[in-house]
Formats: sequence, structure tokens, C-alpha cells
Amino acid sequence: MSAYTKSMQELIECFKKMPGIGAKTAERMAFHVLKASSEDMIKFSSVIRKVKEEVRFCKICGNLSEAETCSICNDQRRDKTIVCVVEEPTDLILIEKSGRYKGVYHVLFGVISPLDGIGPEELRIKELLARIKQDKVKEIILAMDSNAEGETTALYLSENIQPLKIKISRIAYGIPVGGNLDYIDQATLIRALEGRLPVAK
Amino acid sequence: MSAYTKSMQELIECFKKMPGIGAKTAERMAFHVLKASSEDMIKFSSVIRKVKEEVRFCKICGNLSEAETCSICNDQRRDKTIVCVVEEPTDLILIEKSGRYKGVYHVLFGVISPLDGIGPEELRIKELLARIKQDKVKEIILAMDSNAEGETTALYLSENIQPLKIKISRIAYGIPVGGNLDYIDQATLIRALEGRLPVAK
Repeated sequence: MSAYTKSMQELIECFKKMPGIGAKTAERMAFHVLKASSEDMIKFSSVIRKVKEEVRFCKICGNLSEAETCSICNDQRRDKTIVCVVEEPTDLILIEKSGRYKGVYHVLFGVISPLDGIGPEELRIKELLARIKQDKVKEIILAMDSNAEGETTALYLSENIQPLKIKISRIAYGIPVGGNLDYIDQATLIRALEGRLPVAK
Repeated sequence: MSAYTKSMQELIECFKKMPGIGAKTAERMAFHVLKASSEDMIKFSSVIRKVKEEVRFCKICGNLSEAETCSICNDQRRDKTIVCVVEEPTDLILIEKSGRYKGVYHVLFGVISPLDGIGPEELRIKELLARIKQDKVKEIILAMDSNAEGETTALYLSENIQPLKIKISRIAYGIPVGGNLDYIDQATLIRALEGRLPVAK
């Protein structure tokens, strides 16, 4: 069908399956593999296997880990009484990159989405509730996305956590840092006004 | 430094080295590897090795091949007396996809570019001249890019092929099919007018 060799065609197909990679980029990436040093590509090939074989999810929080529990859960300096609940490990990593959060995490691995057939039972909510009781958690920070599914999940969680009488907070809505008011949508502006904070003196 | 495990970090670095892949996309791709089926990823890993080990360049034309000579050069139905000269194997594949060209190819593996220290000796020009004589080539089609380096290379080639008294042509300049005149630059418009063709009746 094409002037590519069989293995090149297979490699392009592998790249095309990746999120956000179209036919053109997949071809460019396959050519990169062809042109790069054998040493680099043997490393690339083996690191893919290594990720599949060694990386799993932390038994406690759901973060990526090469051991049973992850480096964050194992870190004695982290405050285990504050738990930030996120949708996916990527969200955890994003918050972690900010370098300011000193509590621990809980990954739900999704959000409540009836249209996709995902109810509370499909998420790691039971584990969260058990953890709150067991670890004497004082505060839960809900850091779901700000869309319909994220809001539904946050609401469901807060209703289920409220009986446990601990502090529940939702990450703040507002203007992104560096953001220009001209480009902010109405809904965000209203939330930013509602969530206004006194200026520290 | 990050919440990623060591192998995930390594995998992200591998993806980041690819052309046009930034940090965000590299992370998404690494997560794809993590989430995809083991079967698919073992295949992905092995096909990378296969490409490095098995794919080479055709001894005659420079096309990708798993044997000494490529499927195009081996194809008895292709007209060996018409040779289309291209910069890179990707260009060859692009022309091949159109499905209309029935001649053979010659890949230069670059263009003349004095600023990058690439002269005619660095390209597969000697091989092209030898091939013209040996295979009794009747026509050479110059399909280099339409930029300074491509034009220089086309000029150099046509000067060196002219003494052999064969037909030399350059792929046509003009308005892209489906193109809107409003968006065409002046230089292309001038070339399109100069290269006008009589309308068939």
C-alpha cells in the first residue's frame, strides 16, 4: 500500500494511537526513530517495557509508584491529615510541581459521569472514606476539574464526607494568574467576585 | 524533583527528544504507554528495535528498504528511464502516495547548503550521474523544495546533467489545488501566470 517498509508502517501505526498524534506527526516520529542513534533507541525501547513492567499505582493514594506505596505517602515530612482529592495521577503531578502543597493525595481515577456509565462505585471513593477514618484526616481538599462531571463528583464527595465532621474545601475559582480580565468568561468572573478575599495589610 | 517515577521520567525525556513534541505532549504520551495494554506496548517496544535493526536505505535509490534494494527499484512495472530526484525519503513517500508517478526515484539525502557546510560532495549526486549513464535514463524530474537551498541544488543538478543530453524538468509551481487566490503570495502568483497551460478543448 505504501512506500514504507512493513516495520516503519507498524511503527507509524503505534505512534498514531497516541493521544493528539496525527498521521503527519506519527510519520515524523517514526523517521526520528530511524535517524536517531541506535543507542538512544534501544534505551527508548527498553524504557517502554520498564514502564509497563515496573510502574504501578500506590496502594494508598493511587499515585504512580515503583513500590507498593509511593514516595509521597512514604515521606514522613508530608502532613497525612490533609488529603487533596484529584481525578487522575496527572493532576497530582501538576499540583506537586507547584511545590507548595505539603499534604498527601487521593486519586479517584475518574469522575462521576452517568453518560459514560461511571458511578461512585467505579471510583476510589470507598477507599477515601476508609482512609479518612483510619488516618484521622482533618481536611479534604477537592481538586476536581471545574466542569459538570467535576462539580457533580465534588458535590457527591462533600455530601458523603460531611457526616465525618471534618473540614472540606474546594480549590478556588477565579482569574488565572497573569490573566487579562478582557478574556475571562462571565461564569469565572462571577465566581471570582463571589470568592473575593480581603487584601492583606 | 518530580512526582514521576524514574522510568516514567526517562520515558518522558525520550518522547521530548522527538521533533515537534513538547513537555506536555511528552507527558501525555508517557501516560498513554502506562495505560495502554501490555500487549500493545510490548509490540511498540519491539517494533522500535525492529526499525533500527532491519530498515536501511536502498542501495540504488536511497528509499527505505528491508533488503538491499527497495520495493520500487525491484518493481518491473516501474519505468527505470524516468528518475525523480528528491531531498529525503519522506518526499519520495509523499509523491508515492499520490499514486500517479510510475518512474523511479533518487534520494539526495539533503540539499546544497553552504551555510551548513553541505556541498555537492555530501549528497548522492555522483551516484545519480552514474545511474543516468548506466540505466539509460531519459528524463530527470527535479522535485526539490521551493526554497533557496532547493533551487540551488536544482540549478547545480541541471547544469551537471545537461551535458548528458537528457530531458530535465522541475516540478511545477503554481496555485495549490483547492487554494484561494486571496491567500497566495506574489512570487507564487507570478510563477503560476508564467507557467500557464492551454485549456484542453
